[in-house]
Parts: sequence; structure tokens; C-alpha cells
Amino acid sequence: MGKNRLEAFSDGVIAIIITIMVLELKVPHGASLAALVELTPVFLGYVLSFVYVGIYWNNHHHMLHASARVNGNVLWANLHLLFWLSLIPFTTTWVGENVMAPLPVALYGVVLSFAAVAYYILEKCLISCNPSDHILANAVGKEYKGAVSVVLYLLAIPLAYVHVYAAYALYIICAGVWFLPDRRIEAQMRS
Amino acid sequence: MGKNRLEAFSDGVIAIIITIMVLELKVPHGASLAALVELTPVFLGYVLSFVYVGIYWNNHHHMLHASARVNGNVLWANLHLLFWLSLIPFTTTWVGENVMAPLPVALYGVVLSFAAVAYYILEKCLISCNPSDHILANAVGKEYKGAVSVVLYLLAIPLAYVHVYAAYALYIICAGVWFLPDRRIEAQMRS
Amino acid sequence: MGKNRLEAFSDGVIAIIITIMVLELKVPHGASLAALVELTPVFLGYVLSFVYVGIYWNNHHHMLHASARVNGNVLWANLHLLFWLSLIPFTTTWVGENVMAPLPVALYGVVLSFAAVAYYILEKCLISCNPSDHILANAVGKEYKGAVSVVLYLLAIPLAYVHVYAAYALYIICAGVWFLPDRRIEAQMRS
Amino acid sequence: MGKNRLEAFSDGVIAIIITIMVLELKVPHGASLAALVELTPVFLGYVLSFVYVGIYWNNHHHMLHASARVNGNVLWANLHLLFWLSLIPFTTTWVGENVMAPLPVALYGVVLSFAAVAYYILEKCLISCNPSDHILANAVGKEYKGAVSVVLYLLAIPLAYVHVYAAYALYIICAGVWFLPDRRIEAQMRS
Repeated sequence: MGKNRLEAFSDGVIAIIITIMVLELKVPHGASLAALVELTPVFLGYVLSFVYVGIYWNNHHHMLHASARVNGNVLWANLHLLFWLSLIPFTTTWVGENVMAPLPVALYGVVLSFAAVAYYILEKCLISCNPSDHILANAVGKEYKGAVSVVLYLLAIPLAYVHVYAAYALYIICAGVWFLPDRRIEAQMRS
Repeated sequence: MGKNRLEAFSDGVIAIIITIMVLELKVPHGASLAALVELTPVFLGYVLSFVYVGIYWNNHHHMLHASARVNGNVLWANLHLLFWLSLIPFTTTWVGENVMAPLPVALYGVVLSFAAVAYYILEKCLISCNPSDHILANAVGKEYKGAVSVVLYLLAIPLAYVHVYAAYALYIICAGVWFLPDRRIEAQMRS
Repeated sequence: MGKNRLEAFSDGVIAIIITIMVLELKVPHGASLAALVELTPVFLGYVLSFVYVGIYWNNHHHMLHASARVNGNVLWANLHLLFWLSLIPFTTTWVGENVMAPLPVALYGVVLSFAAVAYYILEKCLISCNPSDHILANAVGKEYKGAVSVVLYLLAIPLAYVHVYAAYALYIICAGVWFLPDRRIEAQMRS
Repeated sequence: MGKNRLEAFSDGVIAIIITIMVLELKVPHGASLAALVELTPVFLGYVLSFVYVGIYWNNHHHMLHASARVNGNVLWANLHLLFWLSLIPFTTTWVGENVMAPLPVALYGVVLSFAAVAYYILEKCLISCNPSDHILANAVGKEYKGAVSVVLYLLAIPLAYVHVYAAYALYIICAGVWFLPDRRIEAQMRS
């Protein structure tokens, strides 16, 4: 079974997710600077979530590039990942409208945790579908970024109730951890 | 005539259908848990419809993968299927806002029935366009899932007026019947 | 210059156009049959416009399939066509909300006329870019459907002010004229 | 690393950006000509932004067509460009609703400036990723349109506070400068 259509469908869904978030940047009433400045938290939330969805797209691109085959389990594991990613626009808007409220900030982390777990499941499904693919298996076998970020998200969720800025800091650190595409896969492919 | 562009267009439309449903998860006013909990029926409706649209995408992927050619009839049969799928976000939202009302729950089944019939017509068009394609013809010739699910939908429609939860149960059972990609096509291709 | 990306981009834009129209099918307040029945004109408008956009996608698919090359003029002629198609959701919704009003019904025809002219320009650009392509040139050289439909749209625009149903009838007839993919191109390719 | 998926993802995002702008053409209340005429500034803003996004798509298409390879830096430079393009629907709507107000008109130029800079960064990343690619390097090495348009945008921003129509004129001139695909790359490829 070809992976092209899986990639094309995922590209479509991720392109829509990353773009519909901007629809929540509602045009202010009036043309004053004050009205524009009021949008700052929603705008910053959009930037953070754009980076997160961009990270997922980049890593998805790299992981599927390293895989030769896909099967029915991979299709569903991929849809499962897209489901959690599709909730990011919702949590982004809720956080943007309630910047200091713990529940939206915690929920943002809950959705990111589920997305990270879904990414991990997709990884496992791809490896079991490509058992003799050493590029993928070796590289992913040493995976630690996924684990680190799930731990950080799980830390951020209760932290949102203690100090909301600390939770934001963790989300920004996490984005940094994921920022670079997986150099190990690239390194494996070159060697 | 190549089938690539048919697949790409269908991927685009299905990607949009599956993603715009999440726009109906309106961000609650305020940041309370109660406001979030109120969204539960809309969220569950989103999950069910996401699974349904995912099932259609998976099966569409498998069926077209097994077909060598497409023609004008296939293009229109495919657009006909996409038309009915495009109504799923509407019925999903209506059900989500009126969880216990029989009419929305019945209409959800009506749209699913038409989508199932449209899928069946697409199947027949593909077979008549690929008459000597034994992988497709043998596999689809034994098709029973489509028939079973149409029967279940037609049962669910009146049932929504008797006991709304029974109709929901049928929709969930149906999703289960369709959940796995068509193993018979895969089996045929391997043998 | 490859035509694949032109096709992919057009597929994306047309997929979005055909799908965002369904967002205008606003979920009714309440779950009564009367509320659903009130949506009938908007729904019928959606069906007609879905068929029109589907026709453009099918014909676009056929015309580009018959063309070997594209150039800068073709890219812009294609964007010009997509521009007019992108206005169809707007005119569809306006007609759906003002079924008996002449201006929206006339504007629907104005946008269709511009789309038909844009399609004709794209056709000419493709022929001048592929001058020795006999499949495309012969087939398109006998083109009459475009001319007929522009005449019908130009007739429908004033007719909307005389008898609105006559204008609707013309739009439906036009859709019929365009309904089938261009058999002449297919015939040329077979011979 | 293949560039196909980068192109497909960019096509998806740009297709959505160009199409969601039309959602801001809100259907007028009532069916009068006056109500339609009131939409003129929003419509003209849509036309200008459609042309701008179309220009970016065309140039993006040409530049990537001339590049053999992409890497992780190119992926992020591309996402950075898509981020700024994704803000165009927002600034377009704000300008359309406040045609004579300096701040929205200036912000329109700010977003275009950042998009132009992002395009320049993407260009540099592609050249450093394809160091021995003479088609791309020679052509882009003589690039002046990007510089000219950034200067024009930076001029338009303060000008919006002096004379708003002068700023509009600059935006229209800029679109003209970018309108044609980069003939130099095409010329290089033919020679």
C-alpha cells in the first residue's frame, strides 16, 4: 500500500488546522491601536500553536519519509494523531480568550499530551509495519524527545493551577525541544 | 485517464469535511469547568463523525488503490459521494445541539444512508470501468458491510423516534462494522 | 514547467470552494421539522452550486489532462478562473436567503458568466502554450458548450427581473449542458 | 529529502488562505443594490489580496521548481513565509472594514513587508541547500524585485498616515512589480 495518499491527506488536514486558527483572530471593531493591542494574547497563542503544528508537520514528514510502507494500523494511528491535532485550534482560542485562567491553560497541555502519545503510537505502528527498516527503527529506538515532552506537558497541567506563567514557560520549552527535525533520522540516512 | 487527481481532490474535500466539524466546537464563554462540560455532547458527536469520515477515507483509499482506471462516470459517482459526506458536519452539529431530539438523530442516519448508497454506486462504477480487474471485482463482489450498514441506518431512523439511545447505539455499531479497512481486498492483493 | 502543482493547487482551491458552501447551511434553532424545511432553498442552492463547481472541476481535469505543458500565462489564467469560482459560495448564499429577489438571482448569473469567460481564456492560453497538441486543439476548436452557456447566463440575468423562475430554469439547463465531461476530448484521445 | 511534500503542504495552506478571504464577503442583509454596493471596499480588498497571494504562489512555484533539494532549514523558512501569508486575510478584512483609517492600511503593509522578508530568507535557504544549482543561484542572484517591493511597503506604512490613497497606490504598484513570474529563472532554464 502506497504512503503517498496518506501523506497527501495528512498534509491537507494539517494545512487546514494551521490555517483555521487565524480565523480566530477576529478583526477588531474600529481601527484604533488599542483595539489591535487587545488582540495580543490571541496572536501570541496563534504563534505558539502555529509553531506546534509546524513541528508536528515537520516530524511527520521526516518519519514517513524514513518509512517504506504503511498498513491499515498506520492509517488509523495517523487519523488518531490528526484527531488530537484538530483540537489545537479550539484550545488555542480558549487560552487566547482566558489568558490567566488555569483550566484553559491546563487543557492546552492535555491536548498536547494526547497528540504526543498519538505520535508515539504512530511511530510504533510504522516500526511494526517496517520491521526490517533500520533507518527508521534505529533512529526512533533512541527517541527521547517524545518522552521528555509528555513529561513536561504532564507537569504543566497541574502547574497551570499554581502559576500560569510557569505552564506557559513549559509549553515554550517543549516547542524548543521539538523545534529541530529529528537529526538522528537524517544522520542515519546519510551514514 | 489517471486516478491521481481524483484521489487528490477527494483527499482535499474529505480533509476539509473532517476538519470543519471542529469549528462547531465553539469556545465556551468563561473558563469554568461547567462551561467545558456543557460541550460534551457536541464533542462526542465530533468524535463519532470523525470516525465515520475517517472510515470513508480509509475505504475510499483502499477501493481506489485496487482500481487501475477511472472514467467520467466514476468522477461523478465520486462527487456524489463527496456531496453526502459534506452534509455530515451539518447533521453532526444539529445532533450535538439537540441530543435527545428524534429528528436530528434520524436525519444523521438519513445522510449516512445516502452516503452508503453513494459509496455502493461508486463501487459499481469502478467495477464497470475496470471489468477485468479481478482484485477489485472479487473482493467487492462479496461485499456485505455496505448492505448491513444501510439496513442498520434504515433501522436507526424510525428508532430515533422510539428510543433515541437505541439509534445512537446502532450508529456506533455501524462504525464498528466499517472500522477495519476491507481485509478482503488486501487478502486478494496478497494472494 | 510541470502541470502537477497547478493541478494540485486548483484541486485544493476547488475542494475548499465546494466545501465551504455547506458552512452556510446554518444549523436551525430547535429540532422541529418546520425549522429544517425552512432550509430548503439554501439546500437547493447548495445542490445547484455543488453541481456547477463539480462541472468546473471535471472539465478542468479533462482539459489539463489533454495538455502537455503550462506556462506563466496559464498559471494566471487559472488563478483568474479560480477567482470567479471563489465567488460562487457568496452568490449561492445570497440567492438562498433571497430566493425570489431578482438582484441575487441575476448576480448568480453574472458570476457564472465571468467564470465561463475565464474558462474560455484558460482554454486559449493552454492551446497557445501547446500549439502542436492536436488532441487539445481539435477537441477545443469545436467547443460550443462554453458559448451556449455564456449566452444562457446573459439571457438569465435580465430574465431574473422578469420572471425569477425562468432564470432558475436557465441555470439548471446550463448545468445540464455542461454536465457530461467533454466527450470530444476523450474521443480524440481514443482515436 | 523530497520537495514534493513541501510543495503539497504549501499548496494546501496557500489554497486555504486565498479562499477563506472570500468568507469575509458577508452576504448583505436584504437584496437591494445599495446593500451590494456597500460591499465594494471589502470586495476590492479581496481582489488585491487575491492577486498578492496568487503572486506568492506563482513565485513559490517557480523558485521551488528551480530547486533540486530541500532540508530542515528550508522547511522552517517555508513555514515562516506561510505564517506571514496567513495573516493577509486578517489585514485584508480590517482594511475592508476601515478603508480610510491609517492604522489598518499601514498594518497591511507591515504584514506584506514581513512576507517579503520571509520570502527572501526562503530564497537564501534554498540557495545554501543547493549551492551548485546555477539555474537557481544565477537567477536569484540578480533578484531586485524583492528589494524594491520591501522599500515600497516601508514607504507605504508611514504614507498611510499622510495620505491613505498614496499607500493604496504603492500596494497596487508593488503587485504590478511582482505580477509576472520570474522571467529570469525561466530564461536560465531555457538556455
